Amino acid sequence: MAAQPEASVLFGVFNETTEQEQRVALTPDMVARLRKKGVACMVEHDAGNASQYTDADYEHAGATVADRPTLLSRCDAFGFVSRPAADLIAAMHAGQWVIGMLGSFTDDAYIGSLQAAGLTAVAIERLPRQLSAAQSMDEMTSQNSVMGYKAALVAANAYRSFLPMMTTAAGTIRPAKVLVLGAGIAGLQAIGTARRLGAVVTAYDVRPASKAEVESLGAKFLDLGLDFSRGQGEGGYARQLTAQEQAAQQAAVDEKAAQFDIVITTAKVPGRKPPVLLTAAGVAALHRGAVVVDCAASELGGNVEGSRIGTRVTEGGVTVIGAPTLASEVSNTASNLLSRNVADVLSHFVRNGRLQTAPGDEIDDALVVAGRRRAESDESNVSEKKGE
Amino acid sequence: MAAQPEASVLFGVFNETTEQEQRVALTPDMVARLRKKGVACMVEHDAGNASQYTDADYEHAGATVADRPTLLSRCDAFGFVSRPAADLIAAMHAGQWVIGMLGSFTDDAYIGSLQAAGLTAVAIERLPRQLSAAQSMDEMTSQNSVMGYKAALVAANAYRSFLPMMTTAAGTIRPAKVLVLGAGIAGLQAIGTARRLGAVVTAYDVRPASKAEVESLGAKFLDLGLDFSRGQGEGGYARQLTAQEQAAQQAAVDEKAAQFDIVITTAKVPGRKPPVLLTAAGVAALHRGAVVVDCAASELGGNVEGSRIGTRVTEGGVTVIGAPTLASEVSNTASNLLSRNVADVLSHFVRNGRLQTAPGDEIDDALVVAGRRRAESDESNVSEKKGE
Repeated sequence: MAAQPEASVLFGVFNETTEQEQRVALTPDMVARLRKKGVACMVEHDAGNASQYTDADYEHAGATVADRPTLLSRCDAFGFVSRPAADLIAAMHAGQWVIGMLGSFTDDAYIGSLQAAGLTAVAIERLPRQLSAAQSMDEMTSQNSVMGYKAALVAANAYRSFLPMMTTAAGTIRPAKVLVLGAGIAGLQAIGTARRLGAVVTAYDVRPASKAEVESLGAKFLDLGLDFSRGQGEGGYARQLTAQEQAAQQAAVDEKAAQFDIVITTAKVPGRKPPVLLTAAGVAALHRGAVVVDCAASELGGNVEGSRIGTRVTEGGVTVIGAPTLASEVSNTASNLLSRNVADVLSHFVRNGRLQTAPGDEIDDALVVAGRRRAESDESNVSEKKGE
Repeated sequence: MAAQPEASVLFGVFNETTEQEQRVALTPDMVARLRKKGVACMVEHDAGNASQYTDADYEHAGATVADRPTLLSRCDAFGFVSRPAADLIAAMHAGQWVIGMLGSFTDDAYIGSLQAAGLTAVAIERLPRQLSAAQSMDEMTSQNSVMGYKAALVAANAYRSFLPMMTTAAGTIRPAKVLVLGAGIAGLQAIGTARRLGAVVTAYDVRPASKAEVESLGAKFLDLGLDFSRGQGEGGYARQLTAQEQAAQQAAVDEKAAQFDIVITTAKVPGRKPPVLLTAAGVAALHRGAVVVDCAASELGGNVEGSRIGTRVTEGGVTVIGAPTLASEVSNTASNLLSRNVADVLSHFVRNGRLQTAPGDEIDDALVVAGRRRAESDESNVSEKKGE
């Protein structure tokens, strides 16, 4: 084995496991990769269990397994699947780095609390995804891809008929008709997976550009006879439609949806109320046995009117599944991809053997929402248009 | 609409729904088909609910919906997903027909009770499957096909990684390696479905002939270096292996299985203890995160040593799913196919406008295990080799 550079940065990952969160921000395969960048890894006990990595797996890969106080006192930076809660922030000390999906577009108070604690905060949700250097850091893409795959599987598993067409001696089973609403990364992966299973797939998105993407996967694009130009919002999320646009869209989707067996909705807008893509009337118009999977279900509502987290069957025999944690349910693959994203974000900031920001660097300027950058960029007068 | 023959046979289907049984022996699409044969249909209230057919659906199709006593007093024949329990048999009257999977290979006492009640019993499990006239009556094939499809879906849904290979900016996810043990109808369907989902599939069966079938689906045949000639048993079920053969097979499978991510076992032997295809040692050798789906799990044991009905996770992090009712879980498709099978069996016995057996007819001689046939064939000295 070639000589490694002295590890000068210690990267820590906590155990974030809950019933809703089965992922981990570091998988063992990234330990050696980070070591080559001069980063050593420390992992809280049992952090990877729900993603099928044991403490022994991490130790075997060269990481240290320790308790929470040890991580808090010794690490230079922490990586998160989501973001640290207030008690964890309070236990950190000034100068430490926090890397994760911090919710900076919708939660100024939270970012303020990181700033007040003297932490450097790297908000992955602000990644300039169009940069080729940022591709391997793109957690939203990797996790939405897993979500879309799982959404199709969950739908297929809940549906009480075949997805593929099947010609048997006892008759022919027609293929299931699947409608995917929201054709971003998650929607495209749901389309691909449903098509793998043999379903006939139709998809819809407010962005007219998505038509070509949908069709390139062999699915039909649902023509509502409506046009919402500038459908793409900040950071690659679907933008909010106006009330009028939403009403027109809902009425058109409700009408078309009735002919489908499975409806999958994927228009998640982190931190905000998701757009309603299928109203209660639309659900009521679905046939007995139809299945709806709403990836955007949340405490704030979902893409499906009245959707709740969990599974319910309507009086009309429609199964509505509110499934906000689908990526987490494929924890092993999701963690592997996410860990690579987080490790590459971290590596980006390792300069001359230590963690530092470089004002003017496009990724730095976009991602650093609290800490040194703010001070530095104030000094150098780098323009900021990131907050809202 | 052309004039229908006067309906001279009344066919009844009870509500067999339980938590484990979601299927129904008649779906609305078969009502018109049977009517053309001179058969009218009567369905117990709510019989189709779990298969997504309402009483109104049956009435719309031309069937009568009634309560159990009405069916018992008026119907000429009854079709079953499984078979009637003792209390239902006691409520029937002599001369009525019972059609279903009666368990006649393993339960002489039960068949005796049908005979004693004066019922004519048609045991679908005895179908001479090789006859082309019998293909559309082949309930074992249709239901095992649904079971195999669902087994692959359940496995994919429980597995915490992707089945397909996926090349992303954050790295490449390798495809899952799936092992299917038992390559009959169910196994072949599981192979096909896992392959649709992008897994790399290997399969094994004691019947050497299955190698070509497995390979024709694009899967690899697992070479254990063992040969169990005459692997096919009566009625198309896998035969019981000798204790010695089983031990050799188990050791070889256990050793090979360790390299797979998902193991699906399909060697069901109705009414008997299923062969153990994967021992506890084999399960222990699987990696953390591996998933086992045992379609043969039952009160008598399963294909996987120690498998229980339901899901458990071993100390080594292997998820073992004992899933004996998979066809029932895809109730709509399973019922549609089963209903066609049962309707075609029933139609076979409608002769000159009434239900009657024809001694010497190959299907009649095979299927009728109690009632008129026994008497008639005793008279005509048709040879019998059906019991065991």
